[in-house]
Amino acid sequence: MKIYRNNLKVACARTSHHAFASLAVKRAVISVATRYQWNRRHQNLKSELLHLMRKRRSIRKYNNDSVSLEKIYHILEAGRLAPSGANLQPWIYIIITDDRLKERIRAKAENVERKYHKTAPDELREWFKEQKISPEKEFLTDAPILVVVAASIKAPYWLQSTWISIAYLLLSIESQDLGSLTYTPTETQFLNRLLRIPDEYRPVVILPIGIPAEKPSPRTRARKTLAQIVHLNSYCLR
Amino acid sequence: MKIYRNNLKVACARTSHHAFASLAVKRAVISVATRYQWNRRHQNLKSELLHLMRKRRSIRKYNNDSVSLEKIYHILEAGRLAPSGANLQPWIYIIITDDRLKERIRAKAENVERKYHKTAPDELREWFKEQKISPEKEFLTDAPILVVVAASIKAPYWLQSTWISIAYLLLSIESQDLGSLTYTPTETQFLNRLLRIPDEYRPVVILPIGIPAEKPSPRTRARKTLAQIVHLNSYCLR
Repeated sequence: MKIYRNNLKVACARTSHHAFASLAVKRAVISVATRYQWNRRHQNLKSELLHLMRKRRSIRKYNNDSVSLEKIYHILEAGRLAPSGANLQPWIYIIITDDRLKERIRAKAENVERKYHKTAPDELREWFKEQKISPEKEFLTDAPILVVVAASIKAPYWLQSTWISIAYLLLSIESQDLGSLTYTPTETQFLNRLLRIPDEYRPVVILPIGIPAEKPSPRTRARKTLAQIVHLNSYCLR
Repeated sequence: MKIYRNNLKVACARTSHHAFASLAVKRAVISVATRYQWNRRHQNLKSELLHLMRKRRSIRKYNNDSVSLEKIYHILEAGRLAPSGANLQPWIYIIITDDRLKERIRAKAENVERKYHKTAPDELREWFKEQKISPEKEFLTDAPILVVVAASIKAPYWLQSTWISIAYLLLSIESQDLGSLTYTPTETQFLNRLLRIPDEYRPVVILPIGIPAEKPSPRTRARKTLAQIVHLNSYCLR
């Protein structure tokens, strides 16, 4: 900031000596501002990344506005860059834009859900109740785009690698001010059939992507504190 | 950019009408620069996030410089913010700073590795050879800090959730210009014993964290293109 102000003083001093319209002055001020902005940006990337992570929320309601395929490609570019076991990059992305296909995916997914809601572990059933999550999956037809992420189960660490890629997608979606959700049906064979995905690939998640029509309160998604989850040199009972 | 230039013109115009040293002018220029920088930063966050993802590489060589615990806490704060199944946040982080402990972890890990290198799947053995990865894990003692990420296996989707958290850690480490690596020993029971981690937690990864002493070439870590991994509305043979 100090350097910036000093440089600005120089730029302004020039203004007093030369004609106002001087291009050189304009350039000097722009150059100072740009350099300042660049330095600040690099310094702030750390905190902006945290800010991005902090403001991301799972979105279950989407409005009707479409999302350009260009944005979707930008998002998938992020997923592509994830590290993976032996660099095998086991993931594939299937973009769903077809409305009838989305309806068929939703119908099949809701069948799976209805079965699952009866047999889910207690923690999950409580969570469903608390969050008012029913077997109805409106977001599968409301969101303008679905991205199905599948992975080649032949690759070592395929599941771990693919979830890194999904995390990259989530952050990229957030950086575009779009909303999403990691929807993981407990049975995924129906996706292999509907999307003609060969059996060597296992569908891992469906990401609806669209403009959020809800703003979930952070309060309902409380986090453990660092003090609760960090240990030094050995596990300590809390 | 256009708005910025127009505002700058106003700010400069003021400079020509008033005394040079006017605080109001300085403030106006600073305010314009700040707003410009803020807008640009928000617009650029998308591309900066991609840049961060693109430049991250797995680092196997570290120099001796220490890393402050403050930085480590900043990194773990990112991991804490990851989404998780039913918001159960199943992960815990054990920071290892103790040199003798690091040596014991390395010795045990190398035992596991020597066994594993004999039985690993072909793709991995080829990868090990190509990347000159041996059972020796110098980075476990060279890096000033290790972070062991473990997860409560009682939580639904514990593995998936924890790998999102690990991806958040990786990006935060990169944003601090530090290096890391997702080291996943195939047996992890030794970490439960050495670090007194209860059996309900499974160690998932060891992240060495430190200042890189190598700059791996992107060429040796080739990526598939988007065209190879993206499909529209149904899987297509390539």
